[in-house]
This record gives sequence, C-alpha cells and structure tokens, in this order.
Amino acid sequence: MALATAETTTTLDFGPAVALSCRECGTRFDLGPIFACAECFGPLEVAYTWSSPGETGTAVTREQIASGPSNIWRYRGLLPVPADVASRPNLAPGWTKLVKADNLARELGLRSLHVKDDSGNPTHSFKDRVVAIALEAARNFGFHTLSCSSTGNLAGAVTAAAARAGLDACVFIPSDLEEAKIVMASVYGGRLVGIEGTYDDVNRFCSELIGDPLGDKWGFVNVNLRPYYAEGSRTLAFEIAEQLGWRLPEQIVIPVASGSQLTKIDKGFRELIKLGLVEDRPYKVFGAQAEGCSPVSAAFKAGHDIVRPVKPDTIAKSLAIGNPADGPYVLDIARRSGGAVEDVTDAEVVDAIRLLARTEGIFAETAGGVTVGVLRKLVSNGLLDPEAETVVLNTGDGLKTLDAVSAEARPTAVIRPSLDAFRTAVADHS
Amino acid sequence: MALATAETTTTLDFGPAVALSCRECGTRFDLGPIFACAECFGPLEVAYTWSSPGETGTAVTREQIASGPSNIWRYRGLLPVPADVASRPNLAPGWTKLVKADNLARELGLRSLHVKDDSGNPTHSFKDRVVAIALEAARNFGFHTLSCSSTGNLAGAVTAAAARAGLDACVFIPSDLEEAKIVMASVYGGRLVGIEGTYDDVNRFCSELIGDPLGDKWGFVNVNLRPYYAEGSRTLAFEIAEQLGWRLPEQIVIPVASGSQLTKIDKGFRELIKLGLVEDRPYKVFGAQAEGCSPVSAAFKAGHDIVRPVKPDTIAKSLAIGNPADGPYVLDIARRSGGAVEDVTDAEVVDAIRLLARTEGIFAETAGGVTVGVLRKLVSNGLLDPEAETVVLNTGDGLKTLDAVSAEARPTAVIRPSLDAFRTAVADHS
Repeated sequence: MALATAETTTTLDFGPAVALSCRECGTRFDLGPIFACAECFGPLEVAYTWSSPGETGTAVTREQIASGPSNIWRYRGLLPVPADVASRPNLAPGWTKLVKADNLARELGLRSLHVKDDSGNPTHSFKDRVVAIALEAARNFGFHTLSCSSTGNLAGAVTAAAARAGLDACVFIPSDLEEAKIVMASVYGGRLVGIEGTYDDVNRFCSELIGDPLGDKWGFVNVNLRPYYAEGSRTLAFEIAEQLGWRLPEQIVIPVASGSQLTKIDKGFRELIKLGLVEDRPYKVFGAQAEGCSPVSAAFKAGHDIVRPVKPDTIAKSLAIGNPADGPYVLDIARRSGGAVEDVTDAEVVDAIRLLARTEGIFAETAGGVTVGVLRKLVSNGLLDPEAETVVLNTGDGLKTLDAVSAEARPTAVIRPSLDAFRTAVADHS
Repeated sequence: MALATAETTTTLDFGPAVALSCRECGTRFDLGPIFACAECFGPLEVAYTWSSPGETGTAVTREQIASGPSNIWRYRGLLPVPADVASRPNLAPGWTKLVKADNLARELGLRSLHVKDDSGNPTHSFKDRVVAIALEAARNFGFHTLSCSSTGNLAGAVTAAAARAGLDACVFIPSDLEEAKIVMASVYGGRLVGIEGTYDDVNRFCSELIGDPLGDKWGFVNVNLRPYYAEGSRTLAFEIAEQLGWRLPEQIVIPVASGSQLTKIDKGFRELIKLGLVEDRPYKVFGAQAEGCSPVSAAFKAGHDIVRPVKPDTIAKSLAIGNPADGPYVLDIARRSGGAVEDVTDAEVVDAIRLLARTEGIFAETAGGVTVGVLRKLVSNGLLDPEAETVVLNTGDGLKTLDAVSAEARPTAVIRPSLDAFRTAVADHS
C-alpha cells in the first residue's frame, strides 16, 4: 500500500494533525495510509501540533468545545479531521450518556460510580467513534471502499458509515458471529464476507489482502487507516472528563480486546492535562477481559511484559481477540497508573449484564457484562478503592448479544386475558 | 382507580400543568390518575397555564431551552413535570438525531428531507419519551408499580425506567412478540406477562385489572396515566422544530398505531406557534400505517369520520393496534392540514427498511419501514409535495425486528481465509 498520490496529497486536510509518529522509536512520517514504522516496525500514531514535549500549540478551550455539536465533532480541534467535518455526511457519533449509577454503586458498595454508555451510538457500539475518524482519512486519501476485519460491531459501524458517506464497503467477519451482528452488518448494503476461522484469522487475511491489487484504494479502518481510527477512542476520554465537569475520574474500568481503546483513553486523559483542560491529578486504569480470552490479564497477573496469544472461547465475542496488538501498552498503563487487568467467567458476564439492567435500566452487550463483572471483582478483591470516583464503560448493546441472556430473560408467565388467570399466575410467582 | 389521597395531593408537582381537560367537552378536572371525562367519557389531556384561548402564561424562551440538558428535560417548562426533573433518576431520553437525509431525498426525488431517528433513545424507541413523563406522574401519585399494555417497545421502556427509578414493574404483552422485545422487556427485572391474544386483548385485560384490587397503586402508563404519558410525544415536535433552527417543517410523516403520537406532535407544533417560539406557517401532517392494520388509512380514503376496528396482520407489530383510540383525531388533523393517511404492504415495509439503511446508514424497525414506505408512496401518488421541506419519523430500532430483513440481509459469501477463495467469491458476486 503506497502513500497517497501527489494529486491527493495537495488536498489533504487533517486539521491539527501534523504527522505520524512511531510509538516505539519516535520517527516521524508524513500523514498517509501507513501504520507501521519503516525503521522499527512499531505502530504509528497521529502527532498533533501539541504532541512534542513542551509544545502546547492549540487554543482549544472548554467554551469552544461546549459550543460545538452534541457529538464527537465538538472535539474536532483535537482530532485528525478537517474543521468542517460536522457538515459532511457521517453518522455523527458520540456525546453518549454518562449515567450516574447510584443503584449499581449501592449494590457494589461504591461511593461514586458512572457508566459511560456507548450503546447510544448510531449503530449502538463505540465503534462508530473510531470509524467516523477513519472515514475522514479514507476521504482524504481518495479511497473508494471502506473495509475492516471485525468481531461484529465494527462491521456494522463500517457498512453504515460507508452507506451514509456514499462509499463502497467490503467487510470481513468470523462466520460464526451472533445473528444480530450479521444482519446488521449486511442491511446497510456493501459486501459482508464471512471467514471460516477466528478473528485473528480474519485479521491475517486482511493484512494479505491489503498488499494485493484486489485491495487497491481500499481503506481498512483498523489496518492501513489504523492510526487515524484509533484516535477516535480518545473522544471517550474527552466526553467523560467534560461530562464530569472537566475533571478526570479517579478510577476507570475499560474492556480490553486489542487494547487500543484503553491505550487511547489514557492518551486522551494525558492530553487534556497537557492542554490545561483538566487539572493534573492521578487516575488508575483497569483493564477488563473475559476469562475465555484473557491473555493480557494473564500476563498482568504473572508479572510479564509480553502477552502470550490464546485461542478465544467466550461469549464476549466482541472482545475475543487472542493476539491483542496493544496488549503490552495496556500492561504498562495499568501498572504505571496503579490499576490492574482482571478477568471474569462467562457466567459472571451474564450475571453482570442482568445486574446492570435491573439496577440502571441499561441493557449491555457481553462486553459491558465483562467490565461490570470485572468492576465487581475488583471491589471484592480490594484492587479498586470503593471511596474513589469510578467510571465503567459499556461499549455495546444487549440487543446484539441476546443469546447471552435469552435463556433467563423470559416472561414471568403466559396467560389467557383474564383476571383469574392473572391471579393464579401472580400467586405462582409471588 | 380513585384520585390520589389527600396526603399525596399536598405534594403534587406537575410544573406548568394546572388541570386535566376533556378534549371533547372541555370540562376541567384536578390533576389525578384519571383518563376519561366524568361528563362525556371523552379523553382527558393535560392543560397548562397557557392552554386557554388568549392565554400565553409562560416565559419559556429559546435561550432557556438551549441552555438545558441534551434530552427532553430541556423542555421541562413545557411538560407536566417538576422543575428538578433532570436531577431525578430516569432514563433522560430524547434529543435524538434529526438526520439530513440527502441520499434518501435524492432516491425519492425530494428537495429537502430529514429523518427524526428515535432509535437513539435509551431503549431504542420513542416510547422512552412518553414513559419518562408517566414515571413522574406515578411518583406524584405515590404509585409503587409501573405497568402497561404493550406491543413490545413500551414494555421494555417501562421495565427499564422502573428499574432505574427503583419502582416495581409488571407489564403485559401479546405472547407472540419478537424475541428481541421479549428478552429486552424482561432483562430489566420486574414481571413480564405474556397474554394469549392480540394487543387489543391485552389492552382490554389491563382496563379490567385497573379496576381490581390487584392493580391498586399501579400506574398503567398508557391507561390511568395516559394523559401525562401522551404529552411526552410533544417533545418530538419541540425537538424537530428546534433542530430545524426553530422552524416547523412543511410536511411530516408519522406512524399511526393508537394515533396518539401524531395527535400530540400536531398539538406540540400548535403550542410552539402560540408561545411565539416558531413562526406561524402551515404544515401538512401525514399518517402512515401497514396495510395489514390500516383502519385509519381505510377511513381516510373512504371519507369516513369514524374508524372501523380491524384484526391486525402485519410484520409491523409495534403499529398493530386494530382499534386505535385516537383514530378520529388523526383523520381530523390529516384533513384539516391538507395531509393524508396512507398504508403500505409488508413487502414495501421491508424494501423501505433496506432503502433507509443503504442510503443513510439508519437501521429502522418495521415502524420506520412503514413511514419511509408511505413517504415513497405519497411522493409517487402526488399527495406529498417534493419541493416542500419534509420530515419522516423513525420511531424504533431494526435490532428489535430482525426477522423482517434477516432472510435478505445475509453475508455475500462465506469463505476460507485465503486470497484465492476471496478472488473466486468476488468474481461470483461482482
């Protein structure tokens, strides 16, 4: 995959982004559809005017942000997108609710808890955030097709975004995904291709395709557009801080699939401090995995710096990445901040989904069951301070993983329409 | 169901609401959990300080509204709720997207089209709006249980709202509903009771229950709390006007189940004019039904003033009310405004769901397929002016009615993870 052509380059507009920078060796590259450092193969990330030490180079203020739209484009001055992004056809995700979860806090013995509920996004997962940024990169580079490897949520987010933006879509998923995710990913048009294998097989296949003429002019949001895509997760950090009244939480529990989301939320918090938008105070970052796919949690507990790949086996399919690219960064952030990485069983995931639903009226995807389940576990094993202000993420929607709870979430009774029948049924169930 | 006790009455706080008023004979009643006029059995609706002719009695301004929260409570000064409602535990619905639908407009030959997408609500349907208002009424009247008869969306909205508010819930649905709606309505806790019969059977059963000691201190959101509940639909009118820049659309297409939503949106538009919040200009109201449950459309086409009940048979189950209480009002509003009531077949509903998805990236419930399908039909039969500014409602979420599209929304191909397999599959499908 070459850099953009000279013609395209002249019209590149990434707003405050100035370069790509290697996270390992710091080498800088021109903004382009590249994702690995030519020097050391480290991952590239977007550098902004304020990225260098000592630089503050942006005048973004709380007031400017507050006067922006009720979506992620209120932070356009902090994102690699053109200034007029809000007026272009996209799904305008974000600005989801930060729910004050007093009932759940009481059940868990916490003093202050909020749920950041990303099921309110257009396709009902946090993936709309990252895709919206990748879409602008695809437009910048003149790509005609939007693509991805996906555990399901991303496929729907990509096909929906492409539909609205008028791009073609061709997305790849493991063929055994939840029915709801399959239907959702194909209803928006474009091509949906099921791959016989795990997500890691799908990912390897996409890496092959990207070097093939078949994939020419394709923007794989989580491969060749990954540096831009990943920046979208920072909007979760920005929103949480703004919704808390421009304050960082003291503790945050984040799901870990590839680890990118956790890494970027931490980056977002640090940027807010650097830019003077929030007070500099310590915060602890906790990663959450399902036991059936817990390579990062296992490494954390064993005190390792590297993450040994696993073959996933869990109902939390949206987190089922056995070889998480950003695993080492997650370990580093959890350790540096005084947090932890923990995992829960599938049964605990289901319990946690039901707990969140009956206490706060939020129906979470299995990934939300993982974070709430891990939150509960962290309280009981003493790793999380019950007196500190805590935020837990729900990144998806229960309607997409119905099977997780459908055996237990049934009608109390089915009766004829008569008071006598109801009286009997009530007596049976009270 | 008696009026609230004296003790409760002393603490009633319905904000700007001052009474209940009969829509037929105008007789006024104290605010209470009643829904039918003691004089003429007409439906009661909430009267405000500004409701009488000549009265304006509110100082609500655009600026006050704009400074409110990003949910329906920004309009609390226009709703029967206490001033501190935003700080009480509820789902804070509303402020959903008004999507500028240029792609769909182009396909249909319209100059200006917006989709008001209520799938963005907390339980992914417009019902969260009406339930949030009914919840405040239930609290005012000291009820301990929130209840309803439902075609599915309402049951989930009620059980979720009750969970967050700390009330009990007991909700009633036809037992043959979509799986997603059954799981969603029961996951939040409370009791979900399936009734062997149609929605109209469920409704009749609830009317019996409300007069029985079993139903004492129960707030049936769409029966004894109906006057408050129904007011919530006005927030759709307020949001559409505000999101258009404080302007009424020239044409609006609204689904018709009981007809309450259409009636209340019209009421909301007229109130905005009366209160000076928008310019007084004519607008046309169009009602949309599925052919398999089209009693109001049939009456409109036949020139009748009364609506003959039907037995529903359509995939649009959330609109499957065969005996719509507000049918005559819908007829009146459609005729008075120069609009119409139209219906589409189930096949047209499915086509319209897919059309909306592939043009705008919005995955609608069958009810959204009905409105978009009717919009298309109204353009082709000349009843809708393609040059006038039009808004169409999507009131629910495609994830709840997957079966409608699951036969057609399938993967393009399922392949082994190899470029050769993909090359073959692409060749097969291009």
